[in-house]
Amino acid sequence: MVTGTGVVAGVAYAPVNRVQPRPQLPSGGTIAESEQDPAVNAFADAVVAVQNVLLDKAEHVTGHAREVLNATAQLVADRGLTRAVKKLIKHGDSAEWAVVQATDNLVAQFDRLGGLYAERTTDLRDIRDRLVAELRGEPEPGVPRPKSPVVLFAEDLAPADTAGLDPELTVGLVTEAGGKTSHTAIIARQLGIPCIVGTGVALREIKNDTTVLVDGAAGTVVANPDPEQAMAAVAESNAYFNRVREWRGPGRTSDDYAVQLLANVGDGNAAGKAAAGESEGIGLFRTELAFLSAPEEPSVAEQAEIYRSVLEPYAGRGGRTHVVIRTLDAGSDKPLAFANFDAEANPALGVRGLRLAADNPGLLIHQLDAIAEARKGIDVDVWVMAPMVATVGEARSFAAKCRDRGLWPGVMVEVPAVALKAEQVLAEVEFFSIGTNDLTQYAMASDRLSSKLVDLNDPWQPAVLSLIQMAGHAGIKRHKPVGVCGEAAADPLLACVLAGLGITSLSMAATALPAVGVQLGDVTIEQCRQAAEAAVQAPDAVAAKARATALLKK
Amino acid sequence: MVTGTGVVAGVAYAPVNRVQPRPQLPSGGTIAESEQDPAVNAFADAVVAVQNVLLDKAEHVTGHAREVLNATAQLVADRGLTRAVKKLIKHGDSAEWAVVQATDNLVAQFDRLGGLYAERTTDLRDIRDRLVAELRGEPEPGVPRPKSPVVLFAEDLAPADTAGLDPELTVGLVTEAGGKTSHTAIIARQLGIPCIVGTGVALREIKNDTTVLVDGAAGTVVANPDPEQAMAAVAESNAYFNRVREWRGPGRTSDDYAVQLLANVGDGNAAGKAAAGESEGIGLFRTELAFLSAPEEPSVAEQAEIYRSVLEPYAGRGGRTHVVIRTLDAGSDKPLAFANFDAEANPALGVRGLRLAADNPGLLIHQLDAIAEARKGIDVDVWVMAPMVATVGEARSFAAKCRDRGLWPGVMVEVPAVALKAEQVLAEVEFFSIGTNDLTQYAMASDRLSSKLVDLNDPWQPAVLSLIQMAGHAGIKRHKPVGVCGEAAADPLLACVLAGLGITSLSMAATALPAVGVQLGDVTIEQCRQAAEAAVQAPDAVAAKARATALLKK
Repeated sequence: MVTGTGVVAGVAYAPVNRVQPRPQLPSGGTIAESEQDPAVNAFADAVVAVQNVLLDKAEHVTGHAREVLNATAQLVADRGLTRAVKKLIKHGDSAEWAVVQATDNLVAQFDRLGGLYAERTTDLRDIRDRLVAELRGEPEPGVPRPKSPVVLFAEDLAPADTAGLDPELTVGLVTEAGGKTSHTAIIARQLGIPCIVGTGVALREIKNDTTVLVDGAAGTVVANPDPEQAMAAVAESNAYFNRVREWRGPGRTSDDYAVQLLANVGDGNAAGKAAAGESEGIGLFRTELAFLSAPEEPSVAEQAEIYRSVLEPYAGRGGRTHVVIRTLDAGSDKPLAFANFDAEANPALGVRGLRLAADNPGLLIHQLDAIAEARKGIDVDVWVMAPMVATVGEARSFAAKCRDRGLWPGVMVEVPAVALKAEQVLAEVEFFSIGTNDLTQYAMASDRLSSKLVDLNDPWQPAVLSLIQMAGHAGIKRHKPVGVCGEAAADPLLACVLAGLGITSLSMAATALPAVGVQLGDVTIEQCRQAAEAAVQAPDAVAAKARATALLKK
Repeated sequence: MVTGTGVVAGVAYAPVNRVQPRPQLPSGGTIAESEQDPAVNAFADAVVAVQNVLLDKAEHVTGHAREVLNATAQLVADRGLTRAVKKLIKHGDSAEWAVVQATDNLVAQFDRLGGLYAERTTDLRDIRDRLVAELRGEPEPGVPRPKSPVVLFAEDLAPADTAGLDPELTVGLVTEAGGKTSHTAIIARQLGIPCIVGTGVALREIKNDTTVLVDGAAGTVVANPDPEQAMAAVAESNAYFNRVREWRGPGRTSDDYAVQLLANVGDGNAAGKAAAGESEGIGLFRTELAFLSAPEEPSVAEQAEIYRSVLEPYAGRGGRTHVVIRTLDAGSDKPLAFANFDAEANPALGVRGLRLAADNPGLLIHQLDAIAEARKGIDVDVWVMAPMVATVGEARSFAAKCRDRGLWPGVMVEVPAVALKAEQVLAEVEFFSIGTNDLTQYAMASDRLSSKLVDLNDPWQPAVLSLIQMAGHAGIKRHKPVGVCGEAAADPLLACVLAGLGITSLSMAATALPAVGVQLGDVTIEQCRQAAEAAVQAPDAVAAKARATALLKK
């Protein structure tokens, strides 16, 4: 068994198809005159063969991937290229060596032309490798198009390798390199292919065509498993995904304890999609989109129109439905074109979120005015929260500005200090929303974007859970809602732990919602509370997850 | 009354001496032939006058400042300069215009020569301004040398202005600009001159020669105070500073509760000075000095020699005397010449401190070997601690490496997660040392170097105090020492609060130690505990300090 980091859940059972390495390219090679005509013929055959492979690939995909593959197929038979190769063969070069020279010349020309031409040089190099492999009778380099379902193994996958991956035929992905945010992981997530990354070279022990069982949730690859057990695992996984597909809200535990499930959105379009699904409202509307690309601050009327488009899809639903609007979280890595920021040594610890209001009070005021304007005549509860609040005083000041406009104020809990002073801060506002990504990076003093600190940057870290617990307990004591709107909310097991810590709503990408709903429905709130306590007391993130899982799965 | 940020405590009562602005320089000016000889004479007189002022200044200072002023005095009478000015006057230029042209030419030449010459251009410009002012009969520009004690007022002070400030004659410093870390604040702290910065333009309301009362602790400037009250305030302040001068250790409250007072040092020289004073050991030996300037990693033997020089001054003292060595806290803004670091988006949240050991395990191992070597044959307790520990596992791993070498292991508490998991982390090691500067910046998510976030970056923030309390309580429960080695330890009132939170030792710059000792000696440990509880429960930093002060000063 080989283990790695599971990045897309799901079980696959199929033979291994290892991505072929690129061929070793020749750096010379001459042939006798008598070999020239056969070489020209061999080249012509290779062109046809490679072209057919590419056209076949193109036929099985759609959209941009199809265009790319069709264009590359055209390029293989390019007249200038063909002529150049034949000429070199007639000069006494071997077909492979002629192909390498001719394509490299063309690459140099394309590079000089720049622009769209320069973008095609990757395709030209791909053509060169395919022709050389074909001429040598070697397997097709890169990702071959399988005839029956396979699990793809690779050192790592480049964007070119993944264009046109078919989830019907590539049922699992395992790479030696990569992390949770690698290109492979992103593509696998988009396509819904069970995926494990970062196995290291241990993966090479499993030879091509070996039948393997891949568990994307556990991060395990088992070679030659017992077929009966493997098929049972696949069936169980499929049954689970069926349950997820068919899950209907609202969010509740098996003993009917309500945990509101909300969507994170960035615009009206996403809100419309989320409202069509099982979400009970919006837990985080990020208002940055309207600002970050704007040459100047949008007017109050322009902002109001944008905000209204996010409110409308939930209008008239009644009950606990509400939309939480977060005021501008710019600064740091999200600078505003129309406001000047000083360069900062550590932007994540700098002037961002609500802190911008110190130098730009108008920005916040106009936004609150626009929100007040947007909700007029729309029958939906609107909540407003500020990002990057650090003190009781900041919360008080923000709440006063909201209440002046009849808005329902809350704050994000992402600075550790706010969790530590949770009761006093919550006394000033109506609700909390915990941003677990930032809260984790500050509590662990680990940049959330650093690839070297991924183990520290884990919301399962017991220290982070204890900060969430402080916020949750404050909510219980003050009878005010405390939500979570970070990535942690989308982890089904962690979602149960959060409910056990006193969290009343979970907000996430709308697509993640059903899996969380299914898991919540499988446990009692008492199980959640026991799992939460066990996780907070655990010595580390791995133990926290293991202890909580044991309590939630029993 | 004008208020600002008090940066050096102490009371001064004297007339205002405002720093003279630099003269407006002429950009032209011709004279009749008959005026040329008088102009040459006037220039010669000005040279003598300026030279005398500079030599007089030099006489009243020592060391580097004296060298700088003497060299500048020489430069005034430089033959080339004199000749050039006279030639220009003989061409019909006014003496002032000739001085400007001649010095500016020399500045350009010096700039071209580079190196040490280029460094003198600031002095040349100062000479130019002094000669122009002297020729016009204007007051000496910059900081004049007063004949009797004055309080110096300025917009801001440049390094050149502060060279040779005499604390006997400049008894107070007040500037409109600047913060706690401005050049003015640093110089004032070095010279022990009561100092207030950041008053803003309100300071201009107080005219030259007005008698003022400056309170560097309160940050207040009172114009024309009641002389009797003012002199009483000065007397009280002097009495206090006498107590500080005469204070003798060890650190203890009025009811004899021991709080160990230790020194922060960077090398053997500083350790020697600290040992000659009242310190009971070293609470923080920063080992970076030996590494940051080195072209390659120093050998174990080289390191051992450096470490030994810090241990030796405390050898044979017995009792609770000990030296705490912190392993390398490089990375981030302190890169190592001999190790490669990736550029990081947020270095303060990056791979720094103990985290370096992941890629460079040898670095830590060699350092521990060197410490084990250094303590051989020296009769002093050596403790070793790691910076930037974030988890129980990191603490356990570090402690094992120390114990393998017979070293006494501890960890820094600067990542909030360690305070949140204090009991479990402290179970793995023998002691804690709290780095309040980093702990504050992470808990408040505010870069400690950001001038815009100074209010958030305050160890009086109740959230920070509550993290310190968690570490302190873990120490009480586990019967293990918990020290503080950040700047907070040097604030006398905060030092009492820390003692009340369960902190057993305070480590600081050796010069700050007596003031902390005096304050501790004025209060009972019960007062400290009440102040600590009040500060932790306060809504903000200002209230925390006010409540604690009221309880400690009663």
